[in-house]
Amino acid sequence: MSKWMIAAATLLLLGSSVAADDPLPSWNDKTAKHAIVDFVTAVSSAENSDYVPPAERIAVFDNDGTLWAEQPLYFQLIFALDRVKVLATEHPEWANTQPFKAALENDLSAVLAGGHHALLELIMATHAGMTVGEFRAIAGDWLRTAKHPTTGRLYTDMVYQPMLELLAYLRANDFKTYITSGGGIELLRVFAEDVYGIPPHQVIGSSIKTQYEYRDGDPVLVRLPELNFIDDKDGKPVAINQHIGRRPIAAFGNSDGDLQMLQWTCAGDGIRLCVYVHHTDQEREWAYDRESHIGKLDKGLDQAHEDGWTVVDMKKDWNVIFSPQSN
Amino acid sequence: MSKWMIAAATLLLLGSSVAADDPLPSWNDKTAKHAIVDFVTAVSSAENSDYVPPAERIAVFDNDGTLWAEQPLYFQLIFALDRVKVLATEHPEWANTQPFKAALENDLSAVLAGGHHALLELIMATHAGMTVGEFRAIAGDWLRTAKHPTTGRLYTDMVYQPMLELLAYLRANDFKTYITSGGGIELLRVFAEDVYGIPPHQVIGSSIKTQYEYRDGDPVLVRLPELNFIDDKDGKPVAINQHIGRRPIAAFGNSDGDLQMLQWTCAGDGIRLCVYVHHTDQEREWAYDRESHIGKLDKGLDQAHEDGWTVVDMKKDWNVIFSPQSN
Repeated sequence: MSKWMIAAATLLLLGSSVAADDPLPSWNDKTAKHAIVDFVTAVSSAENSDYVPPAERIAVFDNDGTLWAEQPLYFQLIFALDRVKVLATEHPEWANTQPFKAALENDLSAVLAGGHHALLELIMATHAGMTVGEFRAIAGDWLRTAKHPTTGRLYTDMVYQPMLELLAYLRANDFKTYITSGGGIELLRVFAEDVYGIPPHQVIGSSIKTQYEYRDGDPVLVRLPELNFIDDKDGKPVAINQHIGRRPIAAFGNSDGDLQMLQWTCAGDGIRLCVYVHHTDQEREWAYDRESHIGKLDKGLDQAHEDGWTVVDMKKDWNVIFSPQSN
Repeated sequence: MSKWMIAAATLLLLGSSVAADDPLPSWNDKTAKHAIVDFVTAVSSAENSDYVPPAERIAVFDNDGTLWAEQPLYFQLIFALDRVKVLATEHPEWANTQPFKAALENDLSAVLAGGHHALLELIMATHAGMTVGEFRAIAGDWLRTAKHPTTGRLYTDMVYQPMLELLAYLRANDFKTYITSGGGIELLRVFAEDVYGIPPHQVIGSSIKTQYEYRDGDPVLVRLPELNFIDDKDGKPVAINQHIGRRPIAAFGNSDGDLQMLQWTCAGDGIRLCVYVHHTDQEREWAYDRESHIGKLDKGLDQAHEDGWTVVDMKKDWNVIFSPQSN
């Protein structure tokens, strides 16, 4: 049984009063949880003045740092670095070419010193040049086997149990749950349905261009080494409109990259819920915000306080951080 | 009650044996109808070897010429020409600038003589420069009032009754129905939910770029005069993968612009349904195929015959063409 199914089953089990009273058992009984439950109750109750029809109950979630961890490095970047090592035999020139040389030598600071351009080179060299089907198989193999450098868990075991419960709770109340991630749309789709219960058509992410080719009667979509769309910052509301065509009524993020998505969501008419997950737990996870290179939360924290958005303090609000391990 | 609701109600009415036996009353009892019903029955029956789980029951539909008419000109182009007339007071220079001059003089052949470039100029001048919300309001006003030049019907009354029944029939069998149109995604979304029962997140179309702006705390998406994506020909499988992330099991089109979408759909594993609507009824609609400038169906017709796809002969297969008029 997958993670989200277990969370969903919790809601349905036995009609027990515990489950009925507490759809979010990993959330402590504090302000953030109350804000979420009050919102969901209000929009789902036909007699409530804040009632929202199911078709408009759309919730959007950032992924990195919101649904799963993002330290010490975005997991997709770790995937790219791992792929460089696999592909190096076909590319002897990489031994002397940056940023590949640094990647092969596990010299992360040298990779990052190359900036945006270096990262893009790594992504294109590892994410393009195959069909969509081939890429999914490669990414799936990696997700089934690769382990996080500090916890030793599978990356899909680095997802937040409270957020799995939240996804299940929202869907049990007829919400459609979407991912809107700066990460790559195809990598996300490989695990989002199994791990989060979010089907491929509800995954929005960054993408490279693809090209249709009709190979001897066998059509394929080939991934090209060319950026298509960066689903981050200003791009998130743009992508939400492009994919969904409706303004969400709830949005969940953890960094300044999610700020525009939260602005766009909470500026809509009627009751809205904007939530920032604040990484405050150095013991059980990581603690970072305004000064972090990954998942920087600075302007967003200010606007959350000004506009009264909900800020989840991971240390205080969550009694469990990660989902149980798969194996 | 909207058109698609009436079609859906037909399926549910009274549990009558007529509705139960005939979900597609506007379709004559011939090969095309049998192919559709046999396919839907096979994929929906758990005991059938061709059974497909509901999550994978995805059907994609072209719009122009497949769900509504496209003669004498794509309706969106008529919208653009109408908008040129409305906006002309703000653009005195258009009186002497092509293609606007031709548009203002109703000289369609002169407009078309300008080719792709002229059409793009008309689209950008009429579809960009406002927010997404403003554009939807403008397009909605036009759809509620503008009349088709030869039939005098509202454009939303130029939809095919047999296709409305088909959409309802598929959804009654747990299909997700998507539009994948060369037309603009935002114009489609203005009417697709009411007329076809297809919600905004299941509409895929061509698009211009949009830009997020935070205007004094009020975020808007502004439509830019710059192409984003042309959802036609090779673009259709690309857009289907981008939006849906799964290969459809059924595809419906009417022109060579839909050929790649049908190829992509029918090359998948397992049972598939690819259907071309062939415009053969000069009396009740229009008759055109291999030589037409609009909705040209040439290579597609060849491949349909070679690969055994279903070809709907509108004259012989449909006992009704258009949906009842709204008013």
